[in-house]
Amino acid sequence: MCKQHDHVIGKAYDHDTNKLVQGDIEQEIKTPTESVSYSRRKLLQSTATLGAGIALTGALPTLASASAMAGSRVNVKSKGYAAIDTSGKLHPWEFERRPVGDDDVLIEIKYASICHSDIHQMKGHWGPQKYPQVPGHEIVGVVTAVGKKVSKFKVGDRAGVGCMVDSNSDCESFQQGEEQYCPDTVFTYGYPQESSPTGISQGGYSNNIVVKEHFAVHIPSHISFQDAAPLLCAGITTYSPLMKFNLGKGDKVGVVGIGGLGHLAIKIAVAKGADVYAFTTSPSKVNDILEFGAKEAVVVDDVSKLANYRGKLDYVICTIPYQYDVAAYASVVKPHGTYTQVGMPEKFELNISAIGLSISRVNFNVSLIGGMRETQEVVNFCADNKVFPNVQIIKAEDISRAWEDVVNKRARYRYVIDASTF
Amino acid sequence: MCKQHDHVIGKAYDHDTNKLVQGDIEQEIKTPTESVSYSRRKLLQSTATLGAGIALTGALPTLASASAMAGSRVNVKSKGYAAIDTSGKLHPWEFERRPVGDDDVLIEIKYASICHSDIHQMKGHWGPQKYPQVPGHEIVGVVTAVGKKVSKFKVGDRAGVGCMVDSNSDCESFQQGEEQYCPDTVFTYGYPQESSPTGISQGGYSNNIVVKEHFAVHIPSHISFQDAAPLLCAGITTYSPLMKFNLGKGDKVGVVGIGGLGHLAIKIAVAKGADVYAFTTSPSKVNDILEFGAKEAVVVDDVSKLANYRGKLDYVICTIPYQYDVAAYASVVKPHGTYTQVGMPEKFELNISAIGLSISRVNFNVSLIGGMRETQEVVNFCADNKVFPNVQIIKAEDISRAWEDVVNKRARYRYVIDASTF
Repeated sequence: MCKQHDHVIGKAYDHDTNKLVQGDIEQEIKTPTESVSYSRRKLLQSTATLGAGIALTGALPTLASASAMAGSRVNVKSKGYAAIDTSGKLHPWEFERRPVGDDDVLIEIKYASICHSDIHQMKGHWGPQKYPQVPGHEIVGVVTAVGKKVSKFKVGDRAGVGCMVDSNSDCESFQQGEEQYCPDTVFTYGYPQESSPTGISQGGYSNNIVVKEHFAVHIPSHISFQDAAPLLCAGITTYSPLMKFNLGKGDKVGVVGIGGLGHLAIKIAVAKGADVYAFTTSPSKVNDILEFGAKEAVVVDDVSKLANYRGKLDYVICTIPYQYDVAAYASVVKPHGTYTQVGMPEKFELNISAIGLSISRVNFNVSLIGGMRETQEVVNFCADNKVFPNVQIIKAEDISRAWEDVVNKRARYRYVIDASTF
Repeated sequence: MCKQHDHVIGKAYDHDTNKLVQGDIEQEIKTPTESVSYSRRKLLQSTATLGAGIALTGALPTLASASAMAGSRVNVKSKGYAAIDTSGKLHPWEFERRPVGDDDVLIEIKYASICHSDIHQMKGHWGPQKYPQVPGHEIVGVVTAVGKKVSKFKVGDRAGVGCMVDSNSDCESFQQGEEQYCPDTVFTYGYPQESSPTGISQGGYSNNIVVKEHFAVHIPSHISFQDAAPLLCAGITTYSPLMKFNLGKGDKVGVVGIGGLGHLAIKIAVAKGADVYAFTTSPSKVNDILEFGAKEAVVVDDVSKLANYRGKLDYVICTIPYQYDVAAYASVVKPHGTYTQVGMPEKFELNISAIGLSISRVNFNVSLIGGMRETQEVVNFCADNKVFPNVQIIKAEDISRAWEDVVNKRARYRYVIDASTF
């Protein structure tokens, strides 16, 4: 493996340890779809952290020393698992995060769960990536340092981070609590981020994260870390459109694609009093689906199975993250009803039959996660109503296998990585 | 031309007159995408009209003789222009329509206008077709015969026919006045129709039509036939979604694609008091657009031009009948606003960027014409408010050239065929 990627990562890869290492070196990274050449040194020079990160040596900071670090302009050492190419294999990697700024919190990560988006993005399905890149945007842990302007958190608080880590508070969407739509929003991994020593944001498959306090939420004490982690993306992504639909008791709600997102969508909608119809291609999920509280589990081995449900549902949320027959599924919605797509397919492309969509007279929309206010709301709602995901705890070394399971629909239903194993 | 289509139409084509002729023959029809072999004799045998059509000879019926025909179970002779293959060229054709049934009216067509759908369907862009096929679903004329159960029309009335000619009145959509969504609806041309001597419905590029009275509308006396014709499809297709959006005074409405549909959408929205922003790729249409009453005409030579309008409009209706960058245009709609597609692309396929659509947070829907109640409403509204399309009257022999103009965006803005020239 390490030899075959020799050309990809150049000098940044340690052939002996089979790990990616850091140093003040020129790093050339290439992907099959893009050739990107950039200099870590130049990136470091362009930030306020110049030199500090390089000077930091020794063991990872303890909680006490981390707390002392806040305001010290010292880069934070981190270790996690990174993609180095589009292969879908991750490798242990030690890297640095920016110093804890005035508005930042440092979180010692306890658990991070696996989202299909991690796989899509690392594999380059959504466009060429910069590597090494640490995925992960379902993150929970304990606050170990706070910047001097931080008011929402104190050291020792339980906190979570989802898909966003920074934005521009002047933006109208930001002020409306829909930060995900700000043009300047920095998503949790792979986004250009000047303040990051690696030049891009690095995600939660790691032992810590530095994040603006605005983009962290409180994790109530009556939900476990491992149950809370999936709420940070899967939870908010399904909760937000359900709330925008103004879901009410007795509404007939369809959930299409019963994986990490879908199984949470069922549980949330059931907790809100809806009659849920779940559509899956996996007969082996039927019993689970009924246990989640769905009224019906429909195995769609062929889209003709949807004909029985034509025009019967008030609303559908679809989590399928690949191309599929949108119009066929949309046909189950009542005339002038709403159909929300939350799964993001390869290249983000959905090929839709216009005539099919016209016949079901459906309003089709695509929803992207949710805002920070709503993210806190879903975490609280799930804790209060005991809406917990079905999770399987894994070690860091099992990530690649778990990714294969996710792609092959074998996950039941969310893999959660124990961050102590990074 | 006739030689090269020899294999296509077999014995049904008269090489000497360069016309399609009828006879009690076996007819083999092939298209590049499908090989269809069917027997006209068998079709005739399967209907109640067996023999009657064949027996009818002589001149086309006059108004008086046509009136006498109602109830006589005599096929109605018709002549028009038909496609015989996917070439986009039409040919004069004499054919027969079913006898005037109890619920039918016979209309002597005065004008029929050209819709881009005619071109798409005849060229096979929406799937393989049966030929010969007479297109045309913007039809106006005078009622010359009525069946004994007809109550809405009398001989001499001015009447119009749009995209539908029959359906099943038991259907829920029918009862809600949205006949276009009934599974059994027969569209005006190219649809299997047992009662038709040719086996499929035949459209309005012809001198008469037999249609269930339910699917004909009254044309008020204060609108000319030629101005009324385009309302039967272009008018209702744009009026219906504008009304469903509940368009109000001062609403900011975008119209994308300023052809036959788009120019009527502008005029209707302006008449309803909206501020209209028109998006066109044709700089030569700017002056016209402003004359139609639009507030702004935006020449979109590149989709980057749309950036200035990001999130500014309440609603957009798009008439583009080809693949295009849906998400780029949808970005001009306000968050949670509505975007209606009415243009039907080739193969009905729209390739949509899911991430793009998520960022504009738009409700995307596709609208198909409108119901019969609403079709009468738009005709009345346009007559009462002097909302008239810009039309160019042509002769039957000019149809093929006009089609080229429509495809090449040279139409200004609706070609209307004088049916006396068939």
